[in-house]
Amino acid sequence: MRMVRIGVAGASGYAGGELLRLLLAHPEAEIGALTAGGNAGNTLGGLQPHLLPLADRVLEETGAEAFAGHDVVFLALPHGHSAALAAQLGTDTVVIDCGADHRLTDPEAWRRWYGGEHAGSWPYGLPELPGQRAKLTAAKRVAVPGCYPTVASLALAPALAAGLVEPDVVVTAVSGTSGAGKALKPHLLGSEVMGAVSAYGVGGAHRHTPEIAQNLSQAAGRPITVSFTPLLAPMPRGILANCTARTEASAEEILEAYQKAYANEPFIHLLPEGSWPSTAMTLGANTLALQLTVDPDAGRLVVVAAIDNLTKGTAGGAVQCMNLAVGLPETTGLPLTGVAP
Amino acid sequence: MRMVRIGVAGASGYAGGELLRLLLAHPEAEIGALTAGGNAGNTLGGLQPHLLPLADRVLEETGAEAFAGHDVVFLALPHGHSAALAAQLGTDTVVIDCGADHRLTDPEAWRRWYGGEHAGSWPYGLPELPGQRAKLTAAKRVAVPGCYPTVASLALAPALAAGLVEPDVVVTAVSGTSGAGKALKPHLLGSEVMGAVSAYGVGGAHRHTPEIAQNLSQAAGRPITVSFTPLLAPMPRGILANCTARTEASAEEILEAYQKAYANEPFIHLLPEGSWPSTAMTLGANTLALQLTVDPDAGRLVVVAAIDNLTKGTAGGAVQCMNLAVGLPETTGLPLTGVAP
Amino acid sequence: MRMVRIGVAGASGYAGGELLRLLLAHPEAEIGALTAGGNAGNTLGGLQPHLLPLADRVLEETGAEAFAGHDVVFLALPHGHSAALAAQLGTDTVVIDCGADHRLTDPEAWRRWYGGEHAGSWPYGLPELPGQRAKLTAAKRVAVPGCYPTVASLALAPALAAGLVEPDVVVTAVSGTSGAGKALKPHLLGSEVMGAVSAYGVGGAHRHTPEIAQNLSQAAGRPITVSFTPLLAPMPRGILANCTARTEASAEEILEAYQKAYANEPFIHLLPEGSWPSTAMTLGANTLALQLTVDPDAGRLVVVAAIDNLTKGTAGGAVQCMNLAVGLPETTGLPLTGVAP
Amino acid sequence: MRMVRIGVAGASGYAGGELLRLLLAHPEAEIGALTAGGNAGNTLGGLQPHLLPLADRVLEETGAEAFAGHDVVFLALPHGHSAALAAQLGTDTVVIDCGADHRLTDPEAWRRWYGGEHAGSWPYGLPELPGQRAKLTAAKRVAVPGCYPTVASLALAPALAAGLVEPDVVVTAVSGTSGAGKALKPHLLGSEVMGAVSAYGVGGAHRHTPEIAQNLSQAAGRPITVSFTPLLAPMPRGILANCTARTEASAEEILEAYQKAYANEPFIHLLPEGSWPSTAMTLGANTLALQLTVDPDAGRLVVVAAIDNLTKGTAGGAVQCMNLAVGLPETTGLPLTGVAP
Repeated sequence: MRMVRIGVAGASGYAGGELLRLLLAHPEAEIGALTAGGNAGNTLGGLQPHLLPLADRVLEETGAEAFAGHDVVFLALPHGHSAALAAQLGTDTVVIDCGADHRLTDPEAWRRWYGGEHAGSWPYGLPELPGQRAKLTAAKRVAVPGCYPTVASLALAPALAAGLVEPDVVVTAVSGTSGAGKALKPHLLGSEVMGAVSAYGVGGAHRHTPEIAQNLSQAAGRPITVSFTPLLAPMPRGILANCTARTEASAEEILEAYQKAYANEPFIHLLPEGSWPSTAMTLGANTLALQLTVDPDAGRLVVVAAIDNLTKGTAGGAVQCMNLAVGLPETTGLPLTGVAP
Repeated sequence: MRMVRIGVAGASGYAGGELLRLLLAHPEAEIGALTAGGNAGNTLGGLQPHLLPLADRVLEETGAEAFAGHDVVFLALPHGHSAALAAQLGTDTVVIDCGADHRLTDPEAWRRWYGGEHAGSWPYGLPELPGQRAKLTAAKRVAVPGCYPTVASLALAPALAAGLVEPDVVVTAVSGTSGAGKALKPHLLGSEVMGAVSAYGVGGAHRHTPEIAQNLSQAAGRPITVSFTPLLAPMPRGILANCTARTEASAEEILEAYQKAYANEPFIHLLPEGSWPSTAMTLGANTLALQLTVDPDAGRLVVVAAIDNLTKGTAGGAVQCMNLAVGLPETTGLPLTGVAP
Repeated sequence: MRMVRIGVAGASGYAGGELLRLLLAHPEAEIGALTAGGNAGNTLGGLQPHLLPLADRVLEETGAEAFAGHDVVFLALPHGHSAALAAQLGTDTVVIDCGADHRLTDPEAWRRWYGGEHAGSWPYGLPELPGQRAKLTAAKRVAVPGCYPTVASLALAPALAAGLVEPDVVVTAVSGTSGAGKALKPHLLGSEVMGAVSAYGVGGAHRHTPEIAQNLSQAAGRPITVSFTPLLAPMPRGILANCTARTEASAEEILEAYQKAYANEPFIHLLPEGSWPSTAMTLGANTLALQLTVDPDAGRLVVVAAIDNLTKGTAGGAVQCMNLAVGLPETTGLPLTGVAP
Repeated sequence: MRMVRIGVAGASGYAGGELLRLLLAHPEAEIGALTAGGNAGNTLGGLQPHLLPLADRVLEETGAEAFAGHDVVFLALPHGHSAALAAQLGTDTVVIDCGADHRLTDPEAWRRWYGGEHAGSWPYGLPELPGQRAKLTAAKRVAVPGCYPTVASLALAPALAAGLVEPDVVVTAVSGTSGAGKALKPHLLGSEVMGAVSAYGVGGAHRHTPEIAQNLSQAAGRPITVSFTPLLAPMPRGILANCTARTEASAEEILEAYQKAYANEPFIHLLPEGSWPSTAMTLGANTLALQLTVDPDAGRLVVVAAIDNLTKGTAGGAVQCMNLAVGLPETTGLPLTGVAP
């Protein structure tokens, strides 16, 4: 089989950088056009100095022309910028959008949470959700999930799908700072984030809330209410989510549902009994580490799951979807091993 | 007034070090005997090199003799070691126990969570809880709360006391590593904790769970179920807790209850609207920063609160109780200002 | 004695914040006007949330009028902004400049390293340098040293003053990120600095180089060449400097010179034998921790010293100078104890 | 070609874990026996949870029998344990020692720095040093360099080999904590290392000093004196070294020597002008990032270089040597791309 020719729009950001890190190690990938907005014209060496083999590559201006003749185009653009570009890319080009534009199915939710016109929804790129893999196989358009929805949805879907918990879930997720991107904001300065954990987007204010609710409601087959609180921790990468819902089921019963749901999932790792997730287990890997228990005093299922927000939570999940879209084995080129310590 | 002569049992650990840092800046404190277990005979300079003015002080063996003639003795000992020592200290000596031995009122809970015989309960050192300050004024024995119970109880008590939320609360609290003490455990090595968030004691397995439940049940006047998950974050100090419970009240109604409860509390800071807590606000200070909202979609109150686990969460809270016990203004010698950035 | 009325120009930055943290704990300080540039009109609560007792103070526009009737004005302004404001402040107002404008005595050096006209030099605010304390006592104008020059000069001056080392020194200093201020630069984002050490201003390119050379040449009484390399480490505060020069003297001989030089210095701590500095020892304190040895194979003196760049390296040193200027004991209100762990 | 069957002695430590991470991604590697000391009998899942694909592998007792029939055996053992095991492994087994036992050529130096009998020296595994690659090609025994000697030697060898600097060098190197291994020592606790930079092994006391001197003296063809100071920074991985020596040559002249020396080295990256190394560029990669300048005022060459201490500094360097030893292309299976941010 010939190499897959791949372009990346938004190659100077964190998601773009992680896509390139993964594609450089992907045995079937040929890296084609790399584009940017304000950084167009610069070499990648100054912007992504960890990508040594691409140091001399010059970024082009983002636009459809740059991607002519490419098999796959990844979009790692600010929210609201994907739809217009995607419309200009041929329907036989696989377009994989790491942004939010095509994730929500409900136009009303889009308007409430993002504002403006809804660009329509694409197949949702989380193959491990029930029934989702089939929709992604040979897909031409894929909406890659947000990082928080990836971990929260995979942490709770099996219990909800099996009807083992009540439809009212609480998710507290601690994230590294790269989830906020390279934007120059005072609260993202190293001096501010090191040595500190802080809260933001509390009370349903974070845009990933409706996406989590959409996924969980679909898994449960009924509306699920989600209380979601994101926290910022002093680390560049990683998300650890604590997820809970009331239950009358036993831990064994619930564990069985998870084992069944994820038995054949190469990227989802139910930890051995007594071991609880750390984001360190997944750093730079396309994996999710998960453990669960039932707290009998509280009457609650507690599920803790960890991912790397840039890998399984963004770029790794995107490459996984690309593999499905172009007919490669789903795990091709994707690290199963974290970088630790 | 003459100076208060103060001894510290367990001066080589993190709680002992923080007690001494605060006492060195306390205008009425005279630092007397400092004792240790295995570190007895060594100077403090090698063990607590940040405590420059005490560098040449030699640690004595922990025991009642060392504390003869002291007005106040702080116990910063491993759980289970306080009762025996306290029994040998005269009843006119103020004994303030930073350990767990005398926190729980229910002997059954003590046996289940800590094992062994219950040593009985002492006045609980959280003056900001309803009705608690009176019990601490001129007290001769004080049980200083655990760090997680401090932040979780203060975050939720006003809503529960006002009957504004349901009696089923979920608390996820992210802590710095000093909460685990100086014990040499592999998962506490710098290489393991830096760059990572991890979970431990999940599903009600952490010993602070019954203490939180005890406080909240007392505040509510009825039994409260608590789902508590502690997480470990890559920072030396600080706890940020995300606390939630179902509610039908409005944010305004609830905020009013908090404003009323904490109007005269010098160490509790309700943040201005739109500002959410960061542990950085409270580093090294005896303060608690708090913000709340109601998530109408989820039907939940969400309260986020931050403290320094070693200051308000342990040693600062202990000094606050000492002030009450010996008749000093409650804020004497206690920092209201965090060290940031 | 009546309280000293103190104003701070540049109260929204890191140096300004640290000045206020220290002044809040200073028993003779009355905090007067607080001013800012772009942040004027805002309350301090949003800008310096750790300064709880000043949360409601509104920042005024920086200008001489704001400081009328003040005894002391601290300037924490960008380089080049101090001279004009100082000229408008009465000659009986004590003006303490935390910026670089009045540090260098050589106009040529000023032009080369900073550009523009030299504003003239003021008494240099490092009382621990030979002969310097007398110049600061009752001074009306003080130029507070840079953070790197503080630690490097105190680490090497005794050896040079005693003629015990060759006049060619190498200084490598690792700094926390707050030294770079609150400027929004990509390389200062938390995602970039966490988990990484990097170099900048290498080869004599950093503006603190001529200031170090000036101090050391003055101490030695002859020109000293300085190779200075600053590194950035993943921590908010602290500088650790490794300083070396060729020597034929013994470690004992050199140690004696340091003991003599610093015997009565309350803020300089020669560590006990076998103990080496960590920035943790000095966090939030106005202290410098120092240790030295002679490497016989290399024929070199090696001195390692640590400070908190914002405390002894900026704001604490500034308050120390204020104490001298207004006739207070030099240590008044200054922490000798670090915040650790 | 058939797969290379590889064993690892010391698979539960940090070096062993990094070897396995790299070998899992190596296209020609078949992972054979994994052994440990005290951890024998346990599965790798609990000890190296980031190595998901090996979670169920049981560690055997370290000993020659375990490695029968293996093509390559990596030794990641405490110093002093390699020689005995290596002697029992057949002479046609490639043995690659990540420990120090066979690095030093001078028995006297071994006795002084490590104590006990010298086990003899093996080909030194730094192919980028002058003349070294030939000695490693098809070698049956390889002594992998220490992490500090790797970065310091590569940073200075070209200038010394070209006779462009004086034979008296100063190296200050900042390391992440994984360089100290998994040993349970109080100063390696997360609470102690986070937020702090500290010094250790100062004044030539670190065992890597004679190894650096050996390499540089060999490159220069005359004895080189080395002043080496290691510092510990709050990050799990990475070393950044600042290296300087007096020179009368120009920056251009020296740069040319480096360009010539490293023109064909796939893992050594001379950064573009104006860009200085950060350890982030090399995280998890087998690369070294380097920049240099001449400081005309100080009369010194300043070279800054960064590596990942566990990759190029230990396990990656070891795999690079294995590739040379077994006849594979030198870069096989080795990441050229860092994990950033």
